[in-house]
Amino acid sequence: MSKPKTVVGVLPPRIEISKQDDFDAWYNEVLNKGGLVDRVEGVAGFVMKPPSYFLWESIKSYLDRTLKQIGHENHHLPFALAADPDSYGKRENDASDFPTNEDLIYTYCRKWIKSHHDLPLRINHYSSVSRSIPQCLPFLQNSEPLQQECHTFHLTERDAIAETGRMLDLYTSLYRDLLAVPVVNGRTRSKDPMTGKHSNTTILCHIPGECQWIEAATCQEWGQITSKKYNITVDNPDAERETSPPLRMWHNTYRLSSSAIGLTLALHGDDRGLVLPPRVAETQVYIVALRVPSLAERQRLDLALDDLVTCLSAVGVRVIADRKENASPGMKLHQWVIKGIPLFMDVGQQYIDNNIVTVRRRDIYHAPESKIEVNTSDIQTTVPALLEKIQEDMYHKANDDFHLWKPDIETGEYVLEDQ
Amino acid sequence: MSKPKTVVGVLPPRIEISKQDDFDAWYNEVLNKGGLVDRVEGVAGFVMKPPSYFLWESIKSYLDRTLKQIGHENHHLPFALAADPDSYGKRENDASDFPTNEDLIYTYCRKWIKSHHDLPLRINHYSSVSRSIPQCLPFLQNSEPLQQECHTFHLTERDAIAETGRMLDLYTSLYRDLLAVPVVNGRTRSKDPMTGKHSNTTILCHIPGECQWIEAATCQEWGQITSKKYNITVDNPDAERETSPPLRMWHNTYRLSSSAIGLTLALHGDDRGLVLPPRVAETQVYIVALRVPSLAERQRLDLALDDLVTCLSAVGVRVIADRKENASPGMKLHQWVIKGIPLFMDVGQQYIDNNIVTVRRRDIYHAPESKIEVNTSDIQTTVPALLEKIQEDMYHKANDDFHLWKPDIETGEYVLEDQ
Repeated sequence: MSKPKTVVGVLPPRIEISKQDDFDAWYNEVLNKGGLVDRVEGVAGFVMKPPSYFLWESIKSYLDRTLKQIGHENHHLPFALAADPDSYGKRENDASDFPTNEDLIYTYCRKWIKSHHDLPLRINHYSSVSRSIPQCLPFLQNSEPLQQECHTFHLTERDAIAETGRMLDLYTSLYRDLLAVPVVNGRTRSKDPMTGKHSNTTILCHIPGECQWIEAATCQEWGQITSKKYNITVDNPDAERETSPPLRMWHNTYRLSSSAIGLTLALHGDDRGLVLPPRVAETQVYIVALRVPSLAERQRLDLALDDLVTCLSAVGVRVIADRKENASPGMKLHQWVIKGIPLFMDVGQQYIDNNIVTVRRRDIYHAPESKIEVNTSDIQTTVPALLEKIQEDMYHKANDDFHLWKPDIETGEYVLEDQ
Repeated sequence: MSKPKTVVGVLPPRIEISKQDDFDAWYNEVLNKGGLVDRVEGVAGFVMKPPSYFLWESIKSYLDRTLKQIGHENHHLPFALAADPDSYGKRENDASDFPTNEDLIYTYCRKWIKSHHDLPLRINHYSSVSRSIPQCLPFLQNSEPLQQECHTFHLTERDAIAETGRMLDLYTSLYRDLLAVPVVNGRTRSKDPMTGKHSNTTILCHIPGECQWIEAATCQEWGQITSKKYNITVDNPDAERETSPPLRMWHNTYRLSSSAIGLTLALHGDDRGLVLPPRVAETQVYIVALRVPSLAERQRLDLALDDLVTCLSAVGVRVIADRKENASPGMKLHQWVIKGIPLFMDVGQQYIDNNIVTVRRRDIYHAPESKIEVNTSDIQTTVPALLEKIQEDMYHKANDDFHLWKPDIETGEYVLEDQ
């Protein structure tokens, strides 16, 4: 092996634009430099690199667990392409003849719901959707969001309304517990032209830097519109006579998209880069060996890295030890800060002398209390507790800011629900 | 509530076509009647209903766990659509200018691999692909398969070849342990025009009814072709001098598609319907109450259903109790057989008299030993053990048949690897 090369004259990467000054430019910069997305020239859309795809997988896994608890089943839909393109559209020169995703799902639900015994029906799927909007901000405003969409069919309006309550709670918990993002229940101010109802219910999130309210998830109550259009009916279970007319279903849809990732990154990030909530950070702890004077000490540190990784992995911590020698510990520190990894651990002379390592918190990186010395014998309890503390502190910090902005909501496109 | 209606004159559903007589027709019939897929008129492709999507989720979850163990990370690619359609194809009137999925991934890997420290690189993604073939057999031959695809880049040819060995083992274990499908390593007989190598390695599966060999997963070693075309190089770590030329990577791709679902269903299914391996069956046990003379006994049975579901769920068994009164137990039995649910449990007078329930195995449904009486006090140990026994027996039965067909392999499109 050749000797490690000393890197001379390379400046550590840093974020050039302030979140407050130009939100869009800042957001693009932190996502690129933080290693979350990549763009390839000439291609619309963007690559979700492992740390951002890990966020989506965490969200899916949370949704999956909680949706199954309330009775959802997952299925998979094909693209709604016509089997014979000539038989649609061209024939009558009318594009509305072409089957939509809605045609597909409701035609299929009609077959599924054969009797009131099949209700409530709850089905969920994950998909990517294609939208004809320009590619501006990854996740927040992009042409190919990933999404979770579920449909429920109920026998009574009361059941349908109760379901919306459950789903709002589910989405709220997901944002609070997993993404450390505070949200509030609201609804759009305008009347929905389809349902004629005053508005759709939604949960709202606020990004201070951007000064705008964003829908974090959407809940739509379609009433009996779908059942009427697609002729989805069941027998009346309470009917006295056989001749009693069939009943129409009450139908709701619920959606959460990969904009949840964008909201999380935009809310927590700062002028140094990304700040990832520990529960959804692919790497929670980043260990790096500091420089030590002798080769014997270096070898001892290398073994220490192995031990620390084994110890932390054993208690479920997602940890990486950086053994590469092509960058200084200082360069690595900068990369770690930009990538938003919750905890950074340096292992050096202190470890050799006293079995002590230094951990640094990303969320309060500027504060003196961000730097904590930990005895390696306590590492299996201290580090997981610290990660939980960071998760909690990030939520509380965001929630404090959130309450400052909350009054604004009534003046915009949305109104708050009674809390 | 109205009284439950007695269903009169409705024949239980059954499979009309024999697997041996007409494989394609049999396969379509069992998938439709078994509730795995649904088609909507005018739409290409098909809906994967919850039991078949559960199979794909089980496969993904197995792959995810094992791929992460050997160092893979998941990412997500956009559709490779040109940002500005006018800038491709039309300009030179040459469609080959249009960026392909390969252009996208290799351009992106070139940015990722900056030094030999970044090797080996292992990235994995899940996607659906669109193919212009007619929609004949769901999963086996269809226009929109779901797939897992991973790419690895290595410093040496030896590393690349060793990786293929690991991946063949991984895919083989997946088929054997999860899907109870025996496979064999093979390679295609013809030379690959791209790599110039004798063949691609693959794992092969055989479906007796269809009398044909099918690729169950594909491993392609591209050598240095990709690195040359996309100019992916790294510094030489062993070089004495700075002027030593950069090294080209060795690149492999590995793929498994939702045809794995089709292979599993086709292999295990019989003339009575589907037979699902317990580990991938969304519902493993189906409990139904038999008719009893008195209302008091009926109520006792209803409580028994609750108890059994609680007991079995507690030990991780996926169980459904059918409380609907719109079909006779006999009708339910037929539906259960067609759907291929591994175990069926009836709860009736025997339960009331002696705390005994009868379980029936789907895999050996025709055999006298398929029917077993179990005391409810043993249920938490007996049922999980029985499910494991079914999984094992299904594999052994399939493997015995497989060995009969194995000699055929040399005469076809494939040759066997040395085992």
